[in-house]
Amino acid sequence: MSAIGTHLILEMYDCPAEVIDDLERVREAVREAARAARSTLLHEAAHSFQPQGVTALGLLAESHISVHTWPELGYAAADVFTCGEQARPREACECLARRLEAGRYEIQELERGAKAPPERPARVPEPAPAATGPRPGQCDVG
Amino acid sequence: MSAIGTHLILEMYDCPAEVIDDLERVREAVREAARAARSTLLHEAAHSFQPQGVTALGLLAESHISVHTWPELGYAAADVFTCGEQARPREACECLARRLEAGRYEIQELERGAKAPPERPARVPEPAPAATGPRPGQCDVG
Repeated sequence: MSAIGTHLILEMYDCPAEVIDDLERVREAVREAARAARSTLLHEAAHSFQPQGVTALGLLAESHISVHTWPELGYAAADVFTCGEQARPREACECLARRLEAGRYEIQELERGAKAPPERPARVPEPAPAATGPRPGQCDVG
Repeated sequence: MSAIGTHLILEMYDCPAEVIDDLERVREAVREAARAARSTLLHEAAHSFQPQGVTALGLLAESHISVHTWPELGYAAADVFTCGEQARPREACECLARRLEAGRYEIQELERGAKAPPERPARVPEPAPAATGPRPGQCDVG
Protein backbone atom coordinates (compact mmCIF):
# COMPACT_ATOMS: atom_id res chain seq x y z
CA MET A 1 0.00 0.00 0.00
CA SER A 2 1.53 3.31 -0.98
CA ALA A 3 1.36 6.50 1.02
CA ILE A 4 -0.79 9.44 0.02
CA GLY A 5 1.70 12.03 1.12
CA THR A 6 5.16 12.61 2.48
CA HIS A 7 5.50 14.62 5.66
CA LEU A 8 8.97 15.81 6.52
CA ILE A 9 9.71 17.08 10.01
CA LEU A 10 12.60 19.52 9.98
CA GLU A 11 14.53 20.56 13.07
CA MET A 12 16.88 23.51 12.57
CA TYR A 13 19.42 24.45 15.20
CA ASP A 14 22.06 27.16 15.55
CA CYS A 15 20.15 29.63 13.40
CA PRO A 16 21.14 33.29 13.78
CA ALA A 17 18.56 35.02 15.97
CA GLU A 18 18.24 38.04 13.69
CA VAL A 19 17.53 35.79 10.71
CA ILE A 20 14.78 33.72 12.28
CA ASP A 21 13.19 36.69 14.05
CA ASP A 22 12.70 38.46 10.71
CA LEU A 23 9.15 37.75 9.60
CA GLU A 24 9.67 38.80 6.00
CA ARG A 25 12.76 36.68 5.72
CA VAL A 26 10.97 33.63 7.08
CA ARG A 27 8.01 34.23 4.78
CA GLU A 28 10.34 34.53 1.81
CA ALA A 29 12.02 31.28 2.89
CA VAL A 30 8.63 29.55 2.85
CA ARG A 31 7.90 30.92 -0.63
CA GLU A 32 11.25 29.77 -1.91
CA ALA A 33 10.84 26.39 -0.25
CA ALA A 34 7.50 25.97 -2.02
CA ARG A 35 9.24 26.61 -5.33
CA ALA A 36 12.04 24.21 -4.39
CA ALA A 37 9.41 21.57 -3.64
CA ARG A 38 7.91 22.17 -7.10
CA SER A 39 4.73 23.05 -5.29
CA THR A 40 2.19 25.82 -5.64
CA LEU A 41 1.71 28.27 -2.80
CA LEU A 42 -1.97 29.18 -2.66
CA HIS A 43 -2.26 31.06 0.64
CA GLU A 44 0.00 32.34 3.37
CA ALA A 45 -0.48 33.15 7.04
CA ALA A 46 2.18 34.65 9.25
CA HIS A 47 2.60 36.16 12.67
CA SER A 48 5.30 37.95 14.60
CA PHE A 49 5.37 37.29 18.35
CA GLN A 50 6.52 39.52 21.21
CA PRO A 51 9.19 39.73 22.37
CA GLN A 52 10.46 37.45 19.61
CA GLY A 53 9.65 34.52 17.37
CA VAL A 54 7.68 34.18 14.18
CA THR A 55 5.37 31.69 12.53
CA ALA A 56 4.84 31.40 8.79
CA LEU A 57 2.45 28.95 7.17
CA GLY A 58 2.13 28.21 3.49
CA LEU A 59 -0.95 26.45 2.17
CA LEU A 60 0.15 24.48 -0.87
CA ALA A 61 -1.86 22.88 -3.62
CA GLU A 62 0.08 19.82 -2.42
CA SER A 63 -0.51 20.32 1.36
CA HIS A 64 1.54 22.71 3.54
CA ILE A 65 4.78 24.17 4.85
CA SER A 66 5.11 25.56 8.36
CA VAL A 67 7.94 27.33 10.15
CA HIS A 68 7.98 28.36 13.82
CA THR A 69 11.01 30.08 15.27
CA TRP A 70 12.54 30.62 18.69
CA PRO A 71 15.30 33.17 18.05
CA GLU A 72 16.40 33.13 21.68
CA LEU A 73 17.28 29.45 21.23
CA GLY A 74 18.51 29.63 17.67
CA TYR A 75 15.88 27.02 16.95
CA ALA A 76 13.34 26.75 14.15
CA ALA A 77 10.78 23.98 13.76
CA ALA A 78 9.42 23.31 10.30
CA ASP A 79 7.42 20.72 8.46
CA VAL A 80 6.83 20.14 4.78
CA PHE A 81 3.88 17.99 3.78
CA THR A 82 3.39 17.22 0.11
CA CYS A 83 1.44 14.82 -2.02
CA GLY A 84 2.10 13.92 -5.61
CA GLU A 85 5.03 12.41 -7.41
CA GLN A 86 6.25 15.74 -8.72
CA ALA A 87 6.73 17.31 -5.31
CA ARG A 88 10.20 17.49 -3.82
CA PRO A 89 9.69 18.03 -0.08
CA ARG A 90 13.29 17.26 0.80
CA GLU A 91 14.49 20.06 -1.45
CA ALA A 92 12.11 22.35 0.38
CA CYS A 93 13.65 21.37 3.71
CA GLU A 94 17.14 21.95 2.43
CA CYS A 95 16.05 25.31 1.09
CA LEU A 96 14.60 26.31 4.46
CA ALA A 97 17.73 25.23 6.32
CA ARG A 98 19.88 27.21 3.90
CA ARG A 99 17.71 30.33 3.96
CA LEU A 100 17.43 30.32 7.73
CA GLU A 101 21.17 29.66 8.01
CA ALA A 102 20.83 26.63 10.26
CA GLY A 103 24.15 25.47 11.68
CA ARG A 104 22.74 21.94 11.74
CA TYR A 105 19.44 20.37 10.87
CA GLU A 106 17.66 17.05 10.98
CA ILE A 107 14.90 15.69 8.78
CA GLN A 108 12.51 12.96 9.80
CA GLU A 109 10.28 11.45 7.12
CA LEU A 110 6.76 10.26 7.80
CA GLU A 111 4.51 8.49 5.32
CA ARG A 112 0.98 9.80 5.52
CA GLY A 113 -2.18 7.93 4.69
CA ALA A 114 -0.49 4.58 4.23
CA LYS A 115 -3.56 2.81 5.55
CA ALA A 116 -6.06 4.58 3.34
CA PRO A 117 -7.74 2.54 0.62
CA PRO A 118 -5.71 2.19 -2.56
CA GLU A 119 -7.81 4.41 -4.84
CA ARG A 120 -5.98 7.33 -6.31
CA PRO A 121 -7.10 10.88 -5.58
CA ALA A 122 -7.27 13.41 -8.37
CA ARG A 123 -6.95 16.77 -6.68
CA VAL A 124 -6.55 19.50 -9.19
CA PRO A 125 -5.13 22.69 -7.74
CA GLU A 126 -6.91 25.89 -8.74
CA PRO A 127 -4.84 28.45 -10.64
CA ALA A 128 -2.34 30.13 -8.37
CA PRO A 129 -1.15 33.74 -8.43
CA ALA A 130 1.54 34.12 -11.04
CA ALA A 131 4.13 35.16 -8.48
CA THR A 132 4.04 31.90 -6.57
CA GLY A 133 5.76 29.73 -9.10
CA PRO A 134 4.88 27.18 -11.71
CA ARG A 135 1.59 25.39 -11.47
CA PRO A 136 1.98 21.67 -10.91
CA GLY A 137 0.00 19.00 -12.58
CA GLN A 138 -2.59 16.94 -10.81
CA CYS A 139 -1.75 15.98 -7.30
CA ASP A 140 -1.70 12.24 -7.94
CA VAL A 141 -0.32 9.87 -5.41
CA GLY A 142 2.59 7.68 -6.29
CA MET B 1 16.71 18.17 28.01
CA SER B 2 13.04 18.92 27.57
CA ALA B 3 11.27 19.48 24.28
CA ILE B 4 10.12 22.89 23.13
CA GLY B 5 6.93 21.64 21.58
CA THR B 6 4.72 18.64 21.03
CA HIS B 7 3.82 17.73 17.49
CA LEU B 8 1.01 15.25 17.06
CA ILE B 9 0.50 13.55 13.72
CA LEU B 10 -3.11 12.50 13.29
CA GLU B 11 -4.29 10.00 10.68
CA MET B 12 -8.07 9.81 10.26
CA TYR B 13 -9.65 7.03 8.23
CA ASP B 14 -13.21 6.11 7.30
CA CYS B 15 -14.43 9.68 7.40
CA PRO B 16 -17.71 10.39 5.55
CA ALA B 17 -16.86 12.04 2.22
CA GLU B 18 -19.50 14.73 2.57
CA VAL B 19 -18.13 15.72 5.97
CA ILE B 20 -14.50 16.08 4.97
CA ASP B 21 -15.32 17.75 1.65
CA ASP B 22 -17.18 20.54 3.44
CA LEU B 23 -14.76 23.41 3.83
CA GLU B 24 -16.76 25.26 6.44
CA ARG B 25 -17.14 22.12 8.50
CA VAL B 26 -13.42 21.44 8.39
CA ARG B 27 -12.65 25.06 9.28
CA GLU B 28 -15.04 24.88 12.20
CA ALA B 29 -13.37 21.65 13.31
CA VAL B 30 -10.00 23.44 13.33
CA ARG B 31 -11.46 26.30 15.38
CA GLU B 32 -12.98 23.90 17.86
CA ALA B 33 -9.75 21.88 18.02
CA ALA B 34 -7.85 25.06 18.86
CA ARG B 35 -10.23 25.65 21.75
CA ALA B 36 -9.91 22.02 22.84
CA ALA B 37 -6.14 22.45 22.85
CA ARG B 38 -6.55 25.54 25.06
CA SER B 39 -4.80 27.43 22.32
CA THR B 40 -5.42 30.73 20.62
CA LEU B 41 -6.23 30.81 16.93
CA LEU B 42 -4.62 33.91 15.44
CA HIS B 43 -5.03 33.36 11.69
CA GLU B 44 -6.69 30.90 9.35
CA ALA B 45 -6.05 29.83 5.77
CA ALA B 46 -8.27 27.42 3.87
CA HIS B 47 -8.79 26.11 0.38
CA SER B 48 -11.28 23.93 -1.43
CA PHE B 49 -9.88 21.76 -4.21
CA GLN B 50 -11.52 20.50 -7.39
CA PRO B 51 -13.04 18.02 -7.80
CA GLN B 52 -12.79 17.41 -4.06
CA GLY B 53 -10.69 17.79 -0.96
CA VAL B 54 -10.02 20.68 1.36
CA THR B 55 -7.16 22.11 3.38
CA ALA B 56 -7.56 24.20 6.52
CA LEU B 57 -4.67 25.67 8.46
CA GLY B 58 -4.85 27.40 11.81
CA LEU B 59 -1.99 29.56 13.00
CA LEU B 60 -1.95 29.35 16.78
CA ALA B 61 -0.23 31.48 19.35
CA GLU B 62 1.18 28.09 20.34
CA SER B 63 2.14 26.91 16.78
CA HIS B 64 -0.37 25.37 14.30
CA ILE B 65 -3.11 22.94 13.32
CA SER B 66 -3.46 21.60 9.79
CA VAL B 67 -6.07 19.40 8.14
CA HIS B 68 -5.92 18.03 4.59
CA THR B 69 -8.71 15.82 3.32
CA TRP B 70 -9.20 13.24 0.58
CA PRO B 71 -12.95 12.64 0.56
CA GLU B 72 -12.67 10.02 -2.17
CA LEU B 73 -10.56 7.93 0.22
CA GLY B 74 -12.36 8.84 3.43
CA TYR B 75 -8.97 9.99 4.64
CA ALA B 76 -7.92 13.14 6.46
CA ALA B 77 -4.38 14.00 7.50
CA ALA B 78 -3.91 16.42 10.35
CA ASP B 79 -1.23 17.67 12.65
CA VAL B 80 -1.36 19.65 15.86
CA PHE B 81 1.79 21.38 17.00
CA THR B 82 1.76 23.19 20.32
CA CYS B 83 4.21 24.61 22.78
CA GLY B 84 3.58 25.48 26.38
CA GLU B 85 2.46 23.49 29.35
CA GLN B 86 -1.12 24.70 29.15
CA ALA B 87 -1.73 23.37 25.64
CA ARG B 88 -3.62 20.12 25.20
CA PRO B 89 -2.76 18.93 21.69
CA ARG B 90 -4.17 15.46 22.24
CA GLU B 91 -7.56 16.90 23.06
CA ALA B 92 -7.36 18.82 19.80
CA CYS B 93 -6.72 15.60 17.88
CA GLU B 94 -9.62 13.86 19.55
CA CYS B 95 -11.81 16.84 18.76
CA LEU B 96 -10.82 16.73 15.08
CA ALA B 97 -11.46 13.00 14.84
CA ARG B 98 -14.87 13.45 16.44
CA ARG B 99 -15.86 16.45 14.34
CA LEU B 100 -14.71 14.80 11.11
CA GLU B 101 -16.45 11.59 12.14
CA ALA B 102 -13.41 9.37 11.66
CA GLY B 103 -14.20 5.68 11.90
CA ARG B 104 -10.69 5.12 13.21
CA TYR B 105 -7.70 7.31 13.86
CA GLU B 106 -4.10 7.11 14.94
CA ILE B 107 -1.95 9.65 16.74
CA GLN B 108 1.82 9.73 16.61
CA GLU B 109 3.64 12.02 19.01
CA LEU B 110 6.86 13.80 18.16
CA GLU B 111 8.92 15.90 20.51
CA ARG B 112 10.15 19.03 18.82
CA GLY B 113 13.27 20.98 19.62
CA ALA B 114 14.65 18.44 22.07
CA LYS B 115 18.19 19.31 21.07
CA ALA B 116 17.82 23.05 21.42
CA PRO B 117 19.69 24.73 24.25
CA PRO B 118 17.89 24.64 27.59
CA GLU B 119 16.99 28.33 27.87
CA ARG B 120 13.30 29.01 28.14
CA PRO B 121 11.52 31.08 25.52
CA ALA B 122 9.06 33.74 26.56
CA ARG B 123 6.74 34.12 23.59
CA VAL B 124 3.80 36.27 24.46
CA PRO B 125 0.89 35.87 22.08
CA GLU B 126 -0.67 39.10 20.88
CA PRO B 127 -4.33 39.62 21.75
CA ALA B 128 -6.55 37.36 19.70
CA PRO B 129 -10.00 38.12 18.30
CA ALA B 130 -12.58 37.53 20.99
CA ALA B 131 -14.30 34.81 18.99
CA THR B 132 -11.32 32.49 18.92
CA GLY B 133 -11.42 31.45 22.54
CA PRO B 134 -9.60 32.23 25.74
CA ARG B 135 -6.19 33.78 25.59
CA PRO B 136 -3.47 31.59 27.00
CA GLY B 137 -0.67 32.76 29.16
CA GLN B 138 2.90 32.92 27.99
CA CYS B 139 4.00 30.15 25.75
CA ASP B 140 6.63 28.81 28.10
CA VAL B 141 8.21 25.46 27.51
CA GLY B 142 7.80 22.76 30.09
